[in-house]
Amino acid sequence: MRYLGLLETYKEYLPVNDKTPKLTLQEGNTPLVRAENLSKELGLDLYFKYEGLNPTGSFKDRGMVMAVAKAVEEGSRTIMCASTGNTSAAAAAYAARAGIDCIVLIPNNNIALGKLAQAMIYGAKVIAIEGNFDRALEIVRDITAKHPITLVNSVNPYRIEGQKTAAFEVCDQLGKAPDVLAIPVGNAGNISAYWKGFKEYHERGKSTSLPRMVGFEAEGAMAIVKGEPILEPETIATAIRIGNPASWKTAVAAAEESGGQINYVTDDEILDAYRTIAAKEGIFAEPASAASIAGVYKLHREGYFKGGETVVCVLTGHGLKDPNIAIKSIGGEPLVVQDTEEAVLDAIAKLQGARA
Amino acid sequence: MRYLGLLETYKEYLPVNDKTPKLTLQEGNTPLVRAENLSKELGLDLYFKYEGLNPTGSFKDRGMVMAVAKAVEEGSRTIMCASTGNTSAAAAAYAARAGIDCIVLIPNNNIALGKLAQAMIYGAKVIAIEGNFDRALEIVRDITAKHPITLVNSVNPYRIEGQKTAAFEVCDQLGKAPDVLAIPVGNAGNISAYWKGFKEYHERGKSTSLPRMVGFEAEGAMAIVKGEPILEPETIATAIRIGNPASWKTAVAAAEESGGQINYVTDDEILDAYRTIAAKEGIFAEPASAASIAGVYKLHREGYFKGGETVVCVLTGHGLKDPNIAIKSIGGEPLVVQDTEEAVLDAIAKLQGARA
Repeated sequence: MRYLGLLETYKEYLPVNDKTPKLTLQEGNTPLVRAENLSKELGLDLYFKYEGLNPTGSFKDRGMVMAVAKAVEEGSRTIMCASTGNTSAAAAAYAARAGIDCIVLIPNNNIALGKLAQAMIYGAKVIAIEGNFDRALEIVRDITAKHPITLVNSVNPYRIEGQKTAAFEVCDQLGKAPDVLAIPVGNAGNISAYWKGFKEYHERGKSTSLPRMVGFEAEGAMAIVKGEPILEPETIATAIRIGNPASWKTAVAAAEESGGQINYVTDDEILDAYRTIAAKEGIFAEPASAASIAGVYKLHREGYFKGGETVVCVLTGHGLKDPNIAIKSIGGEPLVVQDTEEAVLDAIAKLQGARA
Repeated sequence: MRYLGLLETYKEYLPVNDKTPKLTLQEGNTPLVRAENLSKELGLDLYFKYEGLNPTGSFKDRGMVMAVAKAVEEGSRTIMCASTGNTSAAAAAYAARAGIDCIVLIPNNNIALGKLAQAMIYGAKVIAIEGNFDRALEIVRDITAKHPITLVNSVNPYRIEGQKTAAFEVCDQLGKAPDVLAIPVGNAGNISAYWKGFKEYHERGKSTSLPRMVGFEAEGAMAIVKGEPILEPETIATAIRIGNPASWKTAVAAAEESGGQINYVTDDEILDAYRTIAAKEGIFAEPASAASIAGVYKLHREGYFKGGETVVCVLTGHGLKDPNIAIKSIGGEPLVVQDTEEAVLDAIAKLQGARA
C-alpha cells in the first residue's frame, strides 16, 4: 500500500479538515539510519534522521505542505517567504504542485547553488536583496501584512505543526522516544517543532518518555547562546546563518523543559563532522545538518554521555544542496589521466600512496 | 517500526544468506507520486517513481547495496566502477558504509557537479580519464579481470538483482502492476532489472499482470534504436550519455517480451519535460530522468494511449545532482534589488509583468 504523505498519515494530529486539499509530494517517511560505525566509536546507540530525503531535499517540506495546504484552503493564490534556500525550495515546490504563485526573497550571497536552482526550476519568482536573511524576513513580514499574500516562513504557525511530525516518525521508527535529540539551530523553528511533537505523542500515550533536546547553533551565528541577536552572522553552514531566530523563545523553552541545552559548534567542527559522516557512514548531508553530529562529538568530549544512550541526530538537508562546498572541503579536483590501463593503474598506486 | 532497507525487506527474492552483511543506507522505499496535473492533461493515471529520494539520490543505490554486500561477503576489500556519476556516488557511499575501498573512473567532462562532489566526499579514489564512459568501462573490465578488485558496474549480476526491487515496490504501492512502465535507457541495466522484477513478482502471484516496458534513449546516444553502437554519444542528459549499452540484449528482450518498445527523445524534449514536471508537479529530477516523461509525451502525441491507462514513469535521479543545468535551463540568475519594501514590490510587479 502506498504511503500517502504527512497530512493523511498524521491527520489526527494536524489542523486538517474536509476542506483541506490533499496536497502531498510524499514528504516525510524519511529514513532513520543507524550510525553503525560512529555508534561504536562514541559508545552510543546513534541514529541519523535523514531529512535530506524529503522531496525537495530538506525537512522544510514537512511544514511547507501544511502551510501551503492551509493557504489554499483559505483561498490564497500567492505565498511568500524569506529564505537561506531550503524554505524557498520547499515553498516553490508545493506552490507548483498546488498551482499557486510563490515569491521568495533571498540574501544576495551565501545561498547554496542547489537551493537557488530549486526555487527557480519550480517556477518561483526569486528576488535577491542586498541584505541578509533577517532583513529579508522583515521585508516579507511588512509586505504580507499589507497585501493578500500568505507568509510561509516559520512564523506561520502551520509550519511548526507540519514539522512536528518528524518527532512522531522518530518515535515510531525507534519504538520509543530517544534519550537525546540533537539538532541544528538556525531560525529555531525545528527544535521547537520536534519538542512539540515529542510532547504531543507522549500526551497521547504513543511514547513513554521524552528526550533531552540539545540544539547547536554555529559559532558565528550563536544568538541564543550569546543571549543577543547577531547583526552580521557568519558561518559556512548557510542554512543556519541566522542572527535573530524567529522561534527563539520556544527553542529556549524546548531546551529548558526537556533538561537539554542550546550550545554551539565551530565551522571547523561542522566541516569535520560533515566529512566524517560521509566517509564513515556513507551519508551526505549539508554542512548545517552536520552541526547536530558535531554537537554530539562536542558533548561526548565534555563527558555529557554516560554511555549507551539512544541519540538521534537530525540531518536537516541533503548534501547535494551545496555540492561546491563538498568539493572545496575535500580540497581538490579528481586526478586526470590518459585512457589506458597503465595510466589508470599508475593513478591508483599514486592515490593509495597519498593515503598511506 | 523501522524500514530496514532492501536486503532485509526483499530477502526472499535476493541472493541474501546468513553470511551476507546487513548493509543498508535505507535505500528503496521511494515515493510513488501521482502526477495530479499531468494525469488530467494527458488523460492517463500517471505516476512518478521518484528514485531521486534514494540515499545517494539515484536508483543506483538499489543495485549497489546488493553488489557491495556480496563483495564484502566474498572477502573483497576494494570495488571499482566506471561511471557517468550516479554509479560512482552509490559505490562510494556503500563502500564507505562497509569500510572498504572504492575506485571510480569517470569521463573527464560532462559529469554533473553534484555527482562528482558525492564520489569525493564519500571518500572514493576518483580518477578522470581522457575518454568517454564506454572507454572507462573497458579499462575497468580489464583491470578488475587481472586484480583482486570487484567490478560493480551493471555487468556485475548482483546490481540487476538489487535494482529489480523497484518493480516490486511499484506493484506494492499501486496494488497492481501498471499498464505501462516508462523508463530512461542509458546503459540499459535498469529496464532489464524492472522487467525481471515484474516477471518475478508475477510468477510468485504478487501481481496479476505485466506492464508494457517502454524505454527511451536520448537521440544523440540512441544505440539500441539505431541498432549499432554510437562512438561519440552526445546528450544534455549525461546520465544516459552512453553509446554502447552493457545490457543491450536484455533491454531489447524486455521491450519485446512485454509488448513495449525502445524509442528515443530529443534533448529539447528532455529539457521541456524536465521543466514541466518541476513547474507543474513540484518534482525536480535530473535531465536523464525526464527522458521517461518526455517519452510518454511523445507516445501520447503519436496516439499510443487509448486513455485511462496506469502509467509509471521512472525518475532515476534527483535534480540536485546537476544544479547548473537547472539554472541554465531557466535562463538566468535571480533579480537583485535593494533591501527595501519598495524595491521588492517593484521587483514583484516586474516579474509578474514579465510573466503576463
